[in-house]
Order: sequence, then structure tokens, then C-alpha cells
Amino acid sequence: MNPFAPTANTRVRRHPERASYDPATVYAIIDDAYCCQVAFNLGDDIHQIPTACWREGNYLYIHGSNGSRMVRALASGSRCCVGITHVDGLVLARSAFSSSMNYRSVLIYGQFEIVEDPGHKLEALHQFMEFLCAGRWQEARQPNSKELAATTVLRIPIEEVVAKTRSGPPKDDTEDYALPIWAGVLPLQAQAAPPIADPQLASDVPLPAYLRAHCAEAH
Amino acid sequence: MNPFAPTANTRVRRHPERASYDPATVYAIIDDAYCCQVAFNLGDDIHQIPTACWREGNYLYIHGSNGSRMVRALASGSRCCVGITHVDGLVLARSAFSSSMNYRSVLIYGQFEIVEDPGHKLEALHQFMEFLCAGRWQEARQPNSKELAATTVLRIPIEEVVAKTRSGPPKDDTEDYALPIWAGVLPLQAQAAPPIADPQLASDVPLPAYLRAHCAEAH
Repeated sequence: MNPFAPTANTRVRRHPERASYDPATVYAIIDDAYCCQVAFNLGDDIHQIPTACWREGNYLYIHGSNGSRMVRALASGSRCCVGITHVDGLVLARSAFSSSMNYRSVLIYGQFEIVEDPGHKLEALHQFMEFLCAGRWQEARQPNSKELAATTVLRIPIEEVVAKTRSGPPKDDTEDYALPIWAGVLPLQAQAAPPIADPQLASDVPLPAYLRAHCAEAH
Repeated sequence: MNPFAPTANTRVRRHPERASYDPATVYAIIDDAYCCQVAFNLGDDIHQIPTACWREGNYLYIHGSNGSRMVRALASGSRCCVGITHVDGLVLARSAFSSSMNYRSVLIYGQFEIVEDPGHKLEALHQFMEFLCAGRWQEARQPNSKELAATTVLRIPIEEVVAKTRSGPPKDDTEDYALPIWAGVLPLQAQAAPPIADPQLASDVPLPAYLRAHCAEAH
């Protein structure tokens, strides 16, 4: 797949070596996130809302209640900027100035569109739950028509997009390498912990296999 | 301390029971984050940039290179919205519709100001490193005048602010509790992993005690 084309918004001027327009890199960062931040203008002010997200092909999907401020703003075609960030570690250089963080981030510029088609909408919500917890959709009580009607699903094309990442050890000034100061990376990881059953769960309902599998892997 | 006063921006309309204007709640969410998202308008478009942050009293601090797009926009007094989000778990309800996430988030609206005073600026960077890695500032090679001159430190008052949180088990519709479907929470946690030494670290430089302590705790 061809790389995404940089625009005035997505061309990285500082540390351009950290930028990537490669779809595989962009997709991997998105797929490792449960949540994005959607920045948009509404009224006289600028807002951002954290919201769950998932990807299908070259679209990022979100959903929300019809009446929410964000859904109303985005449904009206507001330009927005969507961000996803993973902090992967503290980079402890010998000098304070060269200290940094390891991270993976994506920014998407554009406009959301509403997923109007009922079949597409239901399938998108199915994919969302598969993404969160593969295998659960078939078991959970699926949405009824009232619930579906109260929910808006939106998607934004992943076109005006840039990934920015830093990884690896610190980069100190040449003369600082001689200083007797420990330097390296403190990795930070998001990990799943063992599931906690609802206190109201009936005692004869077992933990499903798909949850045991899900818990074993760090997301 | 008195609670923060809700404004048109920060009054939560959907799930108002999840909103908090309590300074202790707001501060704890901020202090658990290494990174925030700063949304701002520049030129004809809306942007957001993930950037490291730390708190001192009732101000959120960030820093950046003088020439960065974000620093220039914020230094000019642009209105902005700063967001911090922690995803704490997947909330698996019996119904797909009632499924949710546990999270802690903060939004701050306002304008950044530059920390111009050299003593304040250096002390702010000191506090930043203390926050990231307590004890390291005294050991690291501290910033020289050229490095300080290349860096802008900014802060935003924590005044127009709201915390929004969800925790605990799923809340299903009454009739769904009878369904034989596992329900509960899959907790997600950010954890520090053992430090990775710079491959260029001299073999006689030991891991400092403050790093062993830091690694033992999940941030």
C-alpha cells in the first residue's frame, strides 16, 4: 500500500525522522488503542473528548449517544483532529535536556461521516466488540432497535494522517557520554489484569474461554 | 479547597454522575499521567499535540522547543483544551449496549502563559524531572544556558476544569441480569518494567537506587 501523502498539517518539522506515513505503522498504533481523543470546535470554543475507537480498513470508527455534544458537532461536518498516543517509556539521558519519552502517536485530520446504513451500523458495532473482546458478540445480548436508534456510529477516513514515534535508548550529546551517570529507558506497559466478576453475577456462570485468552495477553 | 465552578464547557450533561469538580480528584488524575493532549487552533485548522506534562499547585505545566508549532500557537495566547485520559478497564455488561469502559479523564480549558522568569523556569524543569524520576535531577547533567534558552516552559491555570470518571461493575438493564452471560470488568493497568540500560552505558555505572524504587511501583 502506498504511503499516506503528507500535508501542511501532517508534515513533521521537528524530529522529522520520527514521522511515518506508512499505513502498516499507522494501523498498528491505532489497533493498539482502546481510546482516542477527538478535538473539534463547537460554538466559540475548542473541545476534545476521549472516546472509544476501532478501525476497519482505512477508516477509524467511533460511536456515541445521538444527543452528545461531540456527536452533534461531528455529524454537522466539523473539521476535527483525532489523536492516539501510547507512552512506552521514560528515556533517561545523561543530560536533563536530552531526556525524553518513548511513544507511538497518530494524528488524523478530517471530518467524520455518519454510518447511516443499518446493516453497516450493526456490523460496525459487532466489529467494535470483536476488537474489544473477540468472541463476546455472539454471547452478549445484542442491541435492540431502540438501543441502535439511540446510538450514532461515525467514521473518519484515514487519509490526512501521520504517525510519530520514538523508541530506543537516549541520545546524549557526544561529550556527555563520558559522564558517570546511569542512562537508559524505563519501559511502561499497558497490561490486562485478571477479570473481576460483577458482584451480581450468578455463581453458576463461568468465565468464558475468550476472556481467559484475552487476559493472558497484554494489549 | 472549594470545588471548581462548572462552566458551559465543563458542565457534564451526559452521565453527570460521572463528573467531578473536586480539586483532589482532578489533581490525582493529572498526577497519574506522563502525557496530555493539547488541542488548539492554528491557521485554518484544528490541531492536537501529545506532550509531557506535570502539575505544580493549581497549574499544569508543559515544555517544548521554542520553534514548535504548538509552542508558538500557545505562546500567542490561543484558547486551548487540554485532555488527560486513563483507560482503566473494559466493562463487559450482559448487553452489548451497556458495555462500557472504566476511565479517569480531565479536561482543562483556557490559555497557557509562558514561564518567563529564569529561576521559575529552571525550578519548573527541576520539578518535571522530579515528577518523572524522583532523585534524578541532582545526578543528571543539568541544562546549560543554551539549552534553557532553546526551551519554552508554559503553564495553564487549572480553573475551567472537569474530571469525568467511571469505575466499578457493569450496569445492565434490570431484565438482563437474569441472562446466563458472564459480566464484569477486565482491568487495564499501566506498569513500569525493569529498566533497560543504554547499550553505550559504561559497565561500571550502577543502576541508581532511585530507579530501583521507581521501577517497583506501577505509575
